Amino acid sequence: MEVLSETILKEVIIKRPQQSHKGTFGRTALIGGNPRFGGAILMAAQACVYAGAGLTTVITHEKNHAPLHARLPEAMVIDWQDMDMAAKIVQSSDAVLIGCGLGTEPESLRLLRFLLNTLSEKHILVVDGSAITLMAEPPLPIPFPRRTIFTPHEMEWQRLSGLKIEEQGIEKSAEKARQIGSIIVQKSHRTTIFTPQGHAFVLPLGTPAMATGGMGDTLAGIVTAFAAQFKEDLVKSVCAAAYLHSYIAEKLAETRYVVLPTQIAEKIPETMKRFERYEPVRTAD
Amino acid sequence: MEVLSETILKEVIIKRPQQSHKGTFGRTALIGGNPRFGGAILMAAQACVYAGAGLTTVITHEKNHAPLHARLPEAMVIDWQDMDMAAKIVQSSDAVLIGCGLGTEPESLRLLRFLLNTLSEKHILVVDGSAITLMAEPPLPIPFPRRTIFTPHEMEWQRLSGLKIEEQGIEKSAEKARQIGSIIVQKSHRTTIFTPQGHAFVLPLGTPAMATGGMGDTLAGIVTAFAAQFKEDLVKSVCAAAYLHSYIAEKLAETRYVVLPTQIAEKIPETMKRFERYEPVRTAD
Amino acid sequence: MEVLSETILKEVIIKRPQQSHKGTFGRTALIGGNPRFGGAILMAAQACVYAGAGLTTVITHEKNHAPLHARLPEAMVIDWQDMDMAAKIVQSSDAVLIGCGLGTEPESLRLLRFLLNTLSEKHILVVDGSAITLMAEPPLPIPFPRRTIFTPHEMEWQRLSGLKIEEQGIEKSAEKARQIGSIIVQKSHRTTIFTPQGHAFVLPLGTPAMATGGMGDTLAGIVTAFAAQFKEDLVKSVCAAAYLHSYIAEKLAETRYVVLPTQIAEKIPETMKRFERYEPVRTAD
Amino acid sequence: MEVLSETILKEVIIKRPQQSHKGTFGRTALIGGNPRFGGAILMAAQACVYAGAGLTTVITHEKNHAPLHARLPEAMVIDWQDMDMAAKIVQSSDAVLIGCGLGTEPESLRLLRFLLNTLSEKHILVVDGSAITLMAEPPLPIPFPRRTIFTPHEMEWQRLSGLKIEEQGIEKSAEKARQIGSIIVQKSHRTTIFTPQGHAFVLPLGTPAMATGGMGDTLAGIVTAFAAQFKEDLVKSVCAAAYLHSYIAEKLAETRYVVLPTQIAEKIPETMKRFERYEPVRTAD
Repeated sequence: MEVLSETILKEVIIKRPQQSHKGTFGRTALIGGNPRFGGAILMAAQACVYAGAGLTTVITHEKNHAPLHARLPEAMVIDWQDMDMAAKIVQSSDAVLIGCGLGTEPESLRLLRFLLNTLSEKHILVVDGSAITLMAEPPLPIPFPRRTIFTPHEMEWQRLSGLKIEEQGIEKSAEKARQIGSIIVQKSHRTTIFTPQGHAFVLPLGTPAMATGGMGDTLAGIVTAFAAQFKEDLVKSVCAAAYLHSYIAEKLAETRYVVLPTQIAEKIPETMKRFERYEPVRTAD
Repeated sequence: MEVLSETILKEVIIKRPQQSHKGTFGRTALIGGNPRFGGAILMAAQACVYAGAGLTTVITHEKNHAPLHARLPEAMVIDWQDMDMAAKIVQSSDAVLIGCGLGTEPESLRLLRFLLNTLSEKHILVVDGSAITLMAEPPLPIPFPRRTIFTPHEMEWQRLSGLKIEEQGIEKSAEKARQIGSIIVQKSHRTTIFTPQGHAFVLPLGTPAMATGGMGDTLAGIVTAFAAQFKEDLVKSVCAAAYLHSYIAEKLAETRYVVLPTQIAEKIPETMKRFERYEPVRTAD
Repeated sequence: MEVLSETILKEVIIKRPQQSHKGTFGRTALIGGNPRFGGAILMAAQACVYAGAGLTTVITHEKNHAPLHARLPEAMVIDWQDMDMAAKIVQSSDAVLIGCGLGTEPESLRLLRFLLNTLSEKHILVVDGSAITLMAEPPLPIPFPRRTIFTPHEMEWQRLSGLKIEEQGIEKSAEKARQIGSIIVQKSHRTTIFTPQGHAFVLPLGTPAMATGGMGDTLAGIVTAFAAQFKEDLVKSVCAAAYLHSYIAEKLAETRYVVLPTQIAEKIPETMKRFERYEPVRTAD
Repeated sequence: MEVLSETILKEVIIKRPQQSHKGTFGRTALIGGNPRFGGAILMAAQACVYAGAGLTTVITHEKNHAPLHARLPEAMVIDWQDMDMAAKIVQSSDAVLIGCGLGTEPESLRLLRFLLNTLSEKHILVVDGSAITLMAEPPLPIPFPRRTIFTPHEMEWQRLSGLKIEEQGIEKSAEKARQIGSIIVQKSHRTTIFTPQGHAFVLPLGTPAMATGGMGDTLAGIVTAFAAQFKEDLVKSVCAAAYLHSYIAEKLAETRYVVLPTQIAEKIPETMKRFERYEPVRTAD
């Protein structure tokens, strides 16, 4: 078990190459937002764009399109009924997020199945929220990409791992992550990242000011942007994404009783700049 | 009769426990917003989220969904025609607000009746605006939860209490509050909070810069968030909510001829932080 | 002819009475915004709310409702097809604005006719944009309220007064204003306010940074709020509204090549506060 | 070949004449924004308005109207199905932009053909994004106005010029621009502007923080506003527009890891003011 520090940000957030274009920094697709939980996918999209993903397409219920563009014209959008277009977008993406505000209706399950059937081994998949719940259930033994990241809170981790909340110690959770073979971002007041090899990285950060709806969607958006953008070492990228999220929250919480997810998103570009790595310091520290 | 001071904020706004999640800080449901008055429920929702409610669901006319999410993706939303879903949301809520922009149409009355039939004794109910007018009328002798808070302005208080505006002295109003058995936030240029025991707490704050449409909706949102979040002493929570609202307005009015409700909402997290109680000071003052 | 100075702001912007409520500061109704020019009524509404109108209802094409509430939940809104409701709103208003983005379609003319038939002598009417053009045409010899304010730019003033742009000197325009019997805010690079008595007040302010679409709609919104709020001396209120608008624009133009109408609206509350009159200085200067 | 410097801003951004109105600074029409790429036209419109175009009308899919007005009430909007109205708007415009989020569907092609048939020699045309791709294809040998500006990225320039990306040296590209007879803004990490005479102006600016979706749409909006507003020397106007865009991006990138297109738009008015030319310095340098 390792406790993360600011070093993880400096390791991951490399100086961008001068000769680059938007494709260089990754294409992402974000699937979620049913009529009730549309705000979740809007928050994930904002975090993804502000965290530097080159191109972001949101695949969501038609109802969420206007609010998305009113807030974030930088994102592209397609109706989640349009499966032909959705398949094209997903296939050309580097990282795909599913789950933020997806719900657990038949429609949600249909979309999840569609996605898992569309993805190939080149993709990085991020599974959040209700998509974790859906994947934890028996009727869905469809294989998922090798490079999959789950971001469960405690109850979702119980569903996915079978470990009851009171049993979710680091050792048992690490063993389960190894069995699942994925990166697990286990969110709690001290979020821990488990690797497919069974290693654990603990965040020393986190504040109860973050305990408000949408906080996890913002994290999922950052994770997706980092996965698409900093592909070399996916575990480190995910650790850095989680660290960044809580780091900004703690800074904001110094002067705020409650920190809103969208306030975190707005601070991402400046905070990333502060930790940008100028020299190629290859993890020797 | 007691005149409130900043002490009420320090008593109520406790330091959040480190081990907590969004459920810890309360689930709220906000019902209102007809096609004409949709802005009212948007303002209440913003205030509720910014005042720290863990989870906020808005139950409103479909027309208000897109503007809500364009402004506040942190809130969830359902159509107020979807009674099955509305019932589930209400049942799982800690505090429920009804009235902001609800209107007085048959639809409004239907929703109020539905709500009162759905609530149980565990719920805290906040009744604002036209919902007060509807409840003041004879055809609705349906019982309401023990822990109900009414937030009438002078004319609504006349309808609810039977006291004409010129008769609304502290003594008579306190006696009426005792008869009704609820907490009354009687809004005027010097807002007074009456308890079910007939006590009165007077706000020493308030500025005519607050006299603009939507100000009451913002107050109702803060009251709901505080009721859901600081449940131990409901009277104190309501007093603190009202104090906070006017305190921010007075600060903003130092440099503004008119203060907008949404400007107050934006200042809530910082202002709550300034008055956060670090030690467990239990009301000994 | 008199050149206006900052004194006009101090004369008009009185300290608000402590015992007041939103009704004290006027009810306004704003009619405009066809499918193409919807932004115009949104800008007028924002200016009206920020300039201190107690209650603001926008009567506009249904298409503009969601954008209005996404920007300005403080305003109420009704569909301009709903004539019964529109009539009620207009009747209970203190000041009514028509014209911002109204268009010159048959629908526009229908709304103008409806309004003129609904208004009574107690109302203050503000006529802007295409409503001026419509009223200038022969088929509309319907009488309008004694207290009417027209806010034409040069071409609209030509249509209304019959004076060609090159003939629009102060003397001739003043004589036309006297004949029409209304207050005329004649917008140009040096805006002039003409009174029904034929007096002229010239703005010494104005910057080409203001020459962008929507600037007049913002002025119309301020005029309406001032008319509803500061009723005692309507000529002075209109002069103050026009002065405030250009004063803010000039301040912003010190650091901006172009000043946007919405940027002006946002600065209204602070600027009004700076010129608020504390003593009752009754126009002795 | 010439490397541009800040001088280009001072040459182009002249002090506005005191006697002017919104027509003085140009009428623009922006065509684009299909259901998927609606954000692109919203970003172009914001940049166009903030860069000082006197009047801006957006011709776009109906779905984009509400988000446009929620963000930018200063723009007017019409449905891109309404060809009669679109023709009127285009005819009365000084500069027309097509392509941002236009797509490559039959609908997109129909709009492009319509536009090219509607334009006359008095118009300045800006062709961006998928409109370049469509114009590069054989089925469209329709002539375009003499004063046309193309803003291709490397792949679009390949399609338009026939030069493969690796062949796109300055000399060959300049020769192609001469053949096409238009101004080419060839976007890459070092954007170059080619003139119809085959001259080349290289931007010494640009940062990888700009490599995010929507950046080109913002540039296209600025180019259109400058073309409509500073007509005297179109090549210089386009150079200044491109310089301004990258200049703001570089400034923002000093403290941001990624710079969003909408953040650039917001900084335009202040940055233009900083470089405003007070004396008539006629290009003597």
